Amino acid sequence: MTSSRPFNFAPGPATLPEPVLRQVAEEMLDWHGSGMSVMEMSHRGKEFVSIAERAEADLRELLAVPANFRILFMQGGGLGENAIVPMNLSRGGKVDVVITGSWSRKSAAEARRYADVQIAADIGKTGVIPRDWQLRDDAAYLHLCTNETIDGVEFHDLPQSANGVPLVIDISSHMLSRPIDWSRVGLAFGGAQKNVGPAGLTMVFVREDLLGRALDICPSAFNYETVAAHQSMFNTPPTFAIYVAGLVFQWVKGFEYAGLRGLAAIERQNIDKARLLYEALDASSLYENRVDPSCRSRMNVPFFLKNEALNEVFLADAKAAGLLQLKGHKSVGGMRASIYNAMPLAGVQALVSFLKTFEARHG
Amino acid sequence: MTSSRPFNFAPGPATLPEPVLRQVAEEMLDWHGSGMSVMEMSHRGKEFVSIAERAEADLRELLAVPANFRILFMQGGGLGENAIVPMNLSRGGKVDVVITGSWSRKSAAEARRYADVQIAADIGKTGVIPRDWQLRDDAAYLHLCTNETIDGVEFHDLPQSANGVPLVIDISSHMLSRPIDWSRVGLAFGGAQKNVGPAGLTMVFVREDLLGRALDICPSAFNYETVAAHQSMFNTPPTFAIYVAGLVFQWVKGFEYAGLRGLAAIERQNIDKARLLYEALDASSLYENRVDPSCRSRMNVPFFLKNEALNEVFLADAKAAGLLQLKGHKSVGGMRASIYNAMPLAGVQALVSFLKTFEARHG
Repeated sequence: MTSSRPFNFAPGPATLPEPVLRQVAEEMLDWHGSGMSVMEMSHRGKEFVSIAERAEADLRELLAVPANFRILFMQGGGLGENAIVPMNLSRGGKVDVVITGSWSRKSAAEARRYADVQIAADIGKTGVIPRDWQLRDDAAYLHLCTNETIDGVEFHDLPQSANGVPLVIDISSHMLSRPIDWSRVGLAFGGAQKNVGPAGLTMVFVREDLLGRALDICPSAFNYETVAAHQSMFNTPPTFAIYVAGLVFQWVKGFEYAGLRGLAAIERQNIDKARLLYEALDASSLYENRVDPSCRSRMNVPFFLKNEALNEVFLADAKAAGLLQLKGHKSVGGMRASIYNAMPLAGVQALVSFLKTFEARHG
Repeated sequence: MTSSRPFNFAPGPATLPEPVLRQVAEEMLDWHGSGMSVMEMSHRGKEFVSIAERAEADLRELLAVPANFRILFMQGGGLGENAIVPMNLSRGGKVDVVITGSWSRKSAAEARRYADVQIAADIGKTGVIPRDWQLRDDAAYLHLCTNETIDGVEFHDLPQSANGVPLVIDISSHMLSRPIDWSRVGLAFGGAQKNVGPAGLTMVFVREDLLGRALDICPSAFNYETVAAHQSMFNTPPTFAIYVAGLVFQWVKGFEYAGLRGLAAIERQNIDKARLLYEALDASSLYENRVDPSCRSRMNVPFFLKNEALNEVFLADAKAAGLLQLKGHKSVGGMRASIYNAMPLAGVQALVSFLKTFEARHG
């Protein structure tokens, strides 16, 4: 299928696979002969239950989620989870957080409402994840943001937790871009709006032994044990977002690249896309990425023009070339290319080509 | 426009206006020449900001929301708000609740996590809203569910609050079906999935003087003051649901009926639809509605077959006649026809015709 759509490098909500959007449009007035749009279905009816069950099963298969983890479809996004996690897991005790950028910093600040929070390590402005962490053996959990969307910092390996302290990982902006080593994880959460689907859906993967620890002040709608006991239907779930996410899961399962299929193919393409872009940036004398190669994100590639006076013309020329939403986050400035699963290799090739042309003209 | 779609009486998520669904399908791959689906847009980009601003302005106009109320687009649904409201407004003090059915009962139970809750009155199984309420002058607020979706009980007038105690109303299942007397209201909230749009979007209308009272344990993402200060973009809002809701608002604004236009036309049609259905039930010897006429809901019409052995064949015949999702809530049994704004008069006429035919055959 060819498309004349531009390439959209938005950090989230972000580009979605075009075949998924086409199917959503086609099924809008009548899902599978039901006479209803998915938006119009009772969440307890057999049609929607079948959609939700398949979405969960496909997600479990894609990420090889072990049987002792529950998958919850919730609301509130990553910022909501910054409170929901400590309300469910902290028991009002100790929480350690490694700061690797803006998102883990927000998580630490929010957790202070409920727990004794210690910063185990802080990346500061070094661009490299610190090696020495101050960990407490009696912490309720250790929190990491395994991909920092704004800062472009990614953990490529998960640490071994100390003395059985559960690891909580915020995977919002790289969920489904690579496998997860669940043996090292107690809980993972992520908003859908980067790699999975529309904003308004949050996925939580929680090890069953961590259920039942919620504080009394935890709202029922955000109590993991309650949500799990009701198969994510304690309150009306974001049904349409779950449906779109389910189509994305099916798209990932069928994705083929370099002789691979499914998540392995997605990951390989993500590696190739990221390498192509970082190599172009590193080879240039106009652009620079300031993150250490050991922890550069495959998903979010922030970069700066050494001559910042060119920022506006860069963005305007990029848009004219069909390359959208390259402006960096307001807190750091510069540019950022988010190259999630749904960004094809051709999109990164077009961006690299544009980078070279622009540099030749202005560098 | 004609349609062969069946009539869907689901209680929520519920039927949506067909022109809205058609527009959503048409704009799925390219919203207004932007090259993006609305699902793919940054919530901070000018395209989505224009969508959100128009949605809010249209909603404010339709419901004549006064300038001293903020409109918030949030997540978590009615069950989430059952906790979010007392976390924001109770100050840990007293909350009075009038029980008129399942939803207000849930609200009271959840508020007990945060406040000293008193049941001011309880409808029990009487089918009529009690007149005598035990109210406390020093309550932080008085909570009512102004339309009980499961029980089919609706307040047709709002009470005057005592001594300035703010009135909190849960309008989830009749929002936008009729005007609201804001002079009597401190806060109103409702999930979108009945009259407004897809599940996963919650609207909160809060009087400005009630902001800034949140408990310390209130998550930032659910703190009304924080959400208001960020124009509902403290966390990524459910962008696609806001877009669909905005199209529904435009549909309501242009709705014409009985020489009226907009919300007045919608309300008049709702009155006519409800009267038609209740008259048919009351005239029958097979069906019965057990709610007092003074507080029967215009939106949700529960009814029972006096011969309950006919329930299954009733539902099967109704489905064969193109009348979907008439089964009552599991907690009360029987049948329920939800006849929200998007249910055309023709849908209720078809239901009434079916009721008579079925009774003639089985009564």
